[in-house]
Amino acid sequence: MKIALLMENSQAGKNPVVLNELNTVAEPLGHQVFNVGMESEADHHLTYVHLGIMASILINAKAVDFVIAGCGTGQGALMSLNLHPGVYCGYCFDPSDAFLFNQINNGNALALAFAKGFGWGAELNLKYMFEKALTGERGAGYPIERRAPQVQNAGILAEVKAAVLKSDYLETLASIDQSLVKTAVQGERFQSCLFENSQDQAVTDYVKHLLAD
Amino acid sequence: MKIALLMENSQAGKNPVVLNELNTVAEPLGHQVFNVGMESEADHHLTYVHLGIMASILINAKAVDFVIAGCGTGQGALMSLNLHPGVYCGYCFDPSDAFLFNQINNGNALALAFAKGFGWGAELNLKYMFEKALTGERGAGYPIERRAPQVQNAGILAEVKAAVLKSDYLETLASIDQSLVKTAVQGERFQSCLFENSQDQAVTDYVKHLLAD
Amino acid sequence: MKIALLMENSQAGKNPVVLNELNTVAEPLGHQVFNVGMESEADHHLTYVHLGIMASILINAKAVDFVIAGCGTGQGALMSLNLHPGVYCGYCFDPSDAFLFNQINNGNALALAFAKGFGWGAELNLKYMFEKALTGERGAGYPIERRAPQVQNAGILAEVKAAVLKSDYLETLASIDQSLVKTAVQGERFQSCLFENSQDQAVTDYVKHLLAD
Amino acid sequence: MKIALLMENSQAGKNPVVLNELNTVAEPLGHQVFNVGMESEADHHLTYVHLGIMASILINAKAVDFVIAGCGTGQGALMSLNLHPGVYCGYCFDPSDAFLFNQINNGNALALAFAKGFGWGAELNLKYMFEKALTGERGAGYPIERRAPQVQNAGILAEVKAAVLKSDYLETLASIDQSLVKTAVQGERFQSCLFENSQDQAVTDYVKHLLAD
Repeated sequence: MKIALLMENSQAGKNPVVLNELNTVAEPLGHQVFNVGMESEADHHLTYVHLGIMASILINAKAVDFVIAGCGTGQGALMSLNLHPGVYCGYCFDPSDAFLFNQINNGNALALAFAKGFGWGAELNLKYMFEKALTGERGAGYPIERRAPQVQNAGILAEVKAAVLKSDYLETLASIDQSLVKTAVQGERFQSCLFENSQDQAVTDYVKHLLAD
Repeated sequence: MKIALLMENSQAGKNPVVLNELNTVAEPLGHQVFNVGMESEADHHLTYVHLGIMASILINAKAVDFVIAGCGTGQGALMSLNLHPGVYCGYCFDPSDAFLFNQINNGNALALAFAKGFGWGAELNLKYMFEKALTGERGAGYPIERRAPQVQNAGILAEVKAAVLKSDYLETLASIDQSLVKTAVQGERFQSCLFENSQDQAVTDYVKHLLAD
Repeated sequence: MKIALLMENSQAGKNPVVLNELNTVAEPLGHQVFNVGMESEADHHLTYVHLGIMASILINAKAVDFVIAGCGTGQGALMSLNLHPGVYCGYCFDPSDAFLFNQINNGNALALAFAKGFGWGAELNLKYMFEKALTGERGAGYPIERRAPQVQNAGILAEVKAAVLKSDYLETLASIDQSLVKTAVQGERFQSCLFENSQDQAVTDYVKHLLAD
Repeated sequence: MKIALLMENSQAGKNPVVLNELNTVAEPLGHQVFNVGMESEADHHLTYVHLGIMASILINAKAVDFVIAGCGTGQGALMSLNLHPGVYCGYCFDPSDAFLFNQINNGNALALAFAKGFGWGAELNLKYMFEKALTGERGAGYPIERRAPQVQNAGILAEVKAAVLKSDYLETLASIDQSLVKTAVQGERFQSCLFENSQDQAVTDYVKHLLAD
């Protein structure tokens, strides 16, 4: 999988620690990690609202398959990512959460708390969560005998979400305050990830056009 | 506050325990609790997808101020509630989460896990979470000195969410598969809660019309 | 109750935060708090081994009724306190633990983690744990119908513990490397707590004699 | 390592689940598991007090290297195991605990909660805790630069513990109510584990003599 890591200003100083644990787990499994949010407190300023827009663009352009995002408690990232088309973001505070979210909900994003409960051993907990989030068959059900209704409910959720949103992806993007979108796509690492991996030329063009304005 | 409790089929048998803890905490605080999801395994069958629709109708009709929802892990409820207009749902597994979500995010719904980690002491943890979720100034910031950006981000989140959704609430409701909506509004306790407390006649009429079909 | 707070070198800088939460909860309940371990990193150096000796002296002299101790993970404090006569120390990481330990085990000490999992909201979690640790009938059983065997097992535990230890309390104290004991009793706040509240003159005399050496 | 699993009456019905997860993790790592407590609710009745005596005998006879024990909350097992000579028992509720206890405290036993917090995903959490408890260099320090004082403190803890206990191991065993010891050693699986692996003939003889009474 292609995996984007998205961090915002309040916990940006922890990006090297989180990235290191993510790489440690993801690389041996053959996944590719893109660190496209803030990498230090001095970096380009992003809030959890921007992270949602960034996740939305990367997922909808099929530039990445999975997003790891977070903020102080994870709740802002959670709500921000989940409002966008095609983004299904769970909340994860222990390795079992990561596993169960894969098995039951089979979403494409996780929101983590990078300050709440983040003390000694937090980097271990990150590693263990990544281990369980990034391995195993997705959507296999838990308990296994409940696979059928769980897969069905995930499908119905997607239909309801699509129904309440504006129907064209670029229309949703264009409806958002463009200064927010512009800030969201400003980073070089984000742009490289999108431009080199996008499978949707219209989304790429939209972002390029916005940057050229 | 008026508070709706919404539970689905997989953990419906635990409704009496959850309701009892919620009432124990909410009543002395002057809140009113509406138990509008499944109250037993034999009840009218609801999934977390229906819970999202129910929360959406009650919040948008201003029939209730706050929603407590959940499923086995809470993640399905979380994603389902968060896709709807005006619903801002956090995830809560300990009392500190409940407090921080109030202070920082000031949302109007919480998703809980009614099976994951639910063993001895689970009813205590529910009580303690409700104690912290239902008291204290909302949106006061945490740490307090970060109140201004946190309130601001919550406002921007709401704007982005409104932007990507269909612009009229009833249009979003009408866009959803109506058999899902009909199942969601079928329960008597749900209907009483909505019809007796709705502050939006158009939403009430929509639901009544659907039920009369 | 008289409650001693005991903190060691690795987390001494957090003493003001922990003490503040403990006082906030304990004082309105009519409990008295004695901050007898390290109060800053510059204070008299103590390890979790010393905390065990201090708890042992205070509990056996009946100078205090309850001890809150801890270290980075809480595990060192836990094992250190539990080796001494008459000290029954549980481990607590959430409010339900604190409640259940009271109800089921009715011990006289709690070990907490002051670094592991200690991030945003840690002071809230401390407060909530203290709320549940310091209220409610002790030894009431959980679930309530299991009270009789739970009380009985706590009694048998005490008998087994007494059996394997040297039989006279002062003999146990005298058997420990006296330089460790001397360091443990060196602090002025510890001495005040002991000398003003001890109900066992022989223990007081032992400590005074040691300090006079 | 040789690892004993010790479960008591209140959670005996979960023994097959716990044993299965322990075997799944331990066997590929070359460890040998001995299921020497209760294996079902119908089994020979044991309390956490007996588990402490059993752990003490197995550890002191060097029949096993490590013990996994537990009860409803784990606290009774924790206090019971820690009162015995040579047993150093931590408390573990997530995989990071298991790792940190190894690195920092390097004990030889873990107490787990088999009811508190034991819901969906509990068997996953057991597996992940066992993975971290049974791998990695023991006593390596955490953070690594604190290895020296951590190893030193563990050594001093052992000296203090030895000092307050009766000095001969068999004397401690003989001081305990012999009806408790007799119940503790009654199980066939316990006896096989001890008699086939004991490296201390005096302990073996003591138990055999007691059984022959």
